[in-house]
Amino acid sequence: MSDTQTLFALVAGATETAAIDGISAAGADPALMAHTPSADAEILAYGRPVRAPVVPVSPSGCPTPAVVTRAARERVDFESVVVDAGLAEPTGAPTVDVGAAPGGDVRDPEPVPDAGGIFADARRFGADLPAERLVLAETIPGGTTTAMGVLAALGERRAVSSSLPENPLELKREVVDEGLDASGLARGGLAGQPTDAVRQMGDPVLAAVSGLAVGALEAGTDVLLAGGTQLATAGALVRHAGLTADLELATTSFVAADDSADVRALASENDLALTVTDPGFDARDDHPAMAAYLAGEAKEGVGMGGALALADEAGVGMDSIRDAITAVYDRVTGEAAP
Amino acid sequence: MSDTQTLFALVAGATETAAIDGISAAGADPALMAHTPSADAEILAYGRPVRAPVVPVSPSGCPTPAVVTRAARERVDFESVVVDAGLAEPTGAPTVDVGAAPGGDVRDPEPVPDAGGIFADARRFGADLPAERLVLAETIPGGTTTAMGVLAALGERRAVSSSLPENPLELKREVVDEGLDASGLARGGLAGQPTDAVRQMGDPVLAAVSGLAVGALEAGTDVLLAGGTQLATAGALVRHAGLTADLELATTSFVAADDSADVRALASENDLALTVTDPGFDARDDHPAMAAYLAGEAKEGVGMGGALALADEAGVGMDSIRDAITAVYDRVTGEAAP
Repeated sequence: MSDTQTLFALVAGATETAAIDGISAAGADPALMAHTPSADAEILAYGRPVRAPVVPVSPSGCPTPAVVTRAARERVDFESVVVDAGLAEPTGAPTVDVGAAPGGDVRDPEPVPDAGGIFADARRFGADLPAERLVLAETIPGGTTTAMGVLAALGERRAVSSSLPENPLELKREVVDEGLDASGLARGGLAGQPTDAVRQMGDPVLAAVSGLAVGALEAGTDVLLAGGTQLATAGALVRHAGLTADLELATTSFVAADDSADVRALASENDLALTVTDPGFDARDDHPAMAAYLAGEAKEGVGMGGALALADEAGVGMDSIRDAITAVYDRVTGEAAP
Repeated sequence: MSDTQTLFALVAGATETAAIDGISAAGADPALMAHTPSADAEILAYGRPVRAPVVPVSPSGCPTPAVVTRAARERVDFESVVVDAGLAEPTGAPTVDVGAAPGGDVRDPEPVPDAGGIFADARRFGADLPAERLVLAETIPGGTTTAMGVLAALGERRAVSSSLPENPLELKREVVDEGLDASGLARGGLAGQPTDAVRQMGDPVLAAVSGLAVGALEAGTDVLLAGGTQLATAGALVRHAGLTADLELATTSFVAADDSADVRALASENDLALTVTDPGFDARDDHPAMAAYLAGEAKEGVGMGGALALADEAGVGMDSIRDAITAVYDRVTGEAAP
């Protein structure tokens, strides 16, 4: 470690949209889901939950992708930072403040009233960060629905992925249509107005991620968007802000295989260079964490696809990552025992 | 990096006491001094200031000891975290929140109204941190004066060190006497009541450091207090909280050589195992950063003595640390150029 080469920034926040029944699997139940971003931040920073009362799991028990990202970090040793983009619960992870509060329901007229302020603060921070390459990741339950809301407001294709094996796309579209109505918007009504699109149809994480990306790109820093359709939406926001600089998107094979999302089209339509990483979980289909991904759960999140791409670039084999996943999983679930 | 072995926690905050003319050299002038803890946190985290508008220097130009601590971190690669114990200005470093606001003037009746809450929050966090050894450091201009205030309230010897070559001890004693009067206290009036002593005579950093130490010790984590008389005061607070566990204090040879402070007596009276580390700056007395320390400036801060002790334990020679200091100094001051 000396001057920072690659900095992995996890942008963590909340949206009330997650409380809509059937929208998200990012927590065992709605009350615990509010702790998921705080716990994810701790797992990334420390390798286990610290203040958060739970290890985030889906209702069926699939552990958070933070386990995979932390495993990659333990093998690649990249530096990380957590940005508080509206956390709903306290976290023991150190966080950078961008003035964000938890977001409201996308069906409200204005779920992120201060989207412009968050974007501006994040943009300054992105420009100032001493990194040659900034990797941007998210953790926000309900975030694919707000991403769909933003895509609709921008007039982009509104296909998004899901942490559920069966993507509740119909429900998401109904929710987004209700949000457009509440905001008095037609589809595409906010093309070229990215912060307004987030303010009326998004979540605070999208405001911060797009601000960080714009600031970093303007400062000449390389940016890797680490995630699936939410990060692709952040890429669309960057494009609607008028930036044409090179921009990478790295996601998992699980998102890429999700036909309901079509991340490839979303990437190509927004000029994002897509990398798809396959962690080879079929080689360990007896392990509860990896088997759940093979069954279609979680798919991505906490920058999992980007972290795997960093491991790949560093020449760390996926067999080594899988070993690290089992170690982190054992540590994390051991801590969770009563 | 896997599970954290040693975690270096920088506890950063503010006290209005620093604004008293002649009290502190932790900034080029009083307005810039308010940014010193925020900048120190950034230098520790990133190796240079990010959001803070300045590189902290004394009025004569001595750079902040954060340069030395960061240099040690670049050679030893220990993990670090910043605790926001009442920062007065924004920082780009990620911080952990313990509910602290900047402290008032020690001459006020109650400069840290929520000392009990900060202590309790820090204690929980100290107990939960996944480290085998917690190293605690401070950055708070004016902090030796509030330390003296707390020592007076506890009835301990009230000799403290200074970031100035000539320790303004008489001024500090007058200020502390005024504080005791304002709080209606006699010397020793709050022996055995550590959080009350901080509430009436201290600063929010002392509340957080002592809480972190107590929580960590109660959880069986080793604690190293990294600093001079302020950290020794935190050690006294731990003792007045009734804990008798082993507790280390590591400081620099510059503090140990300061007869006005007598850190050895303060350590021994509070049963703190003292380590004194000499970075051998006389071998580089042509370098502006190191020459200033030889002339009696700064002496300690940002855990400098503890960071040097970690380097020593890791077998990293002081010649290597001095080389790293020149590299960090060049990077930091290069950034500061217009």
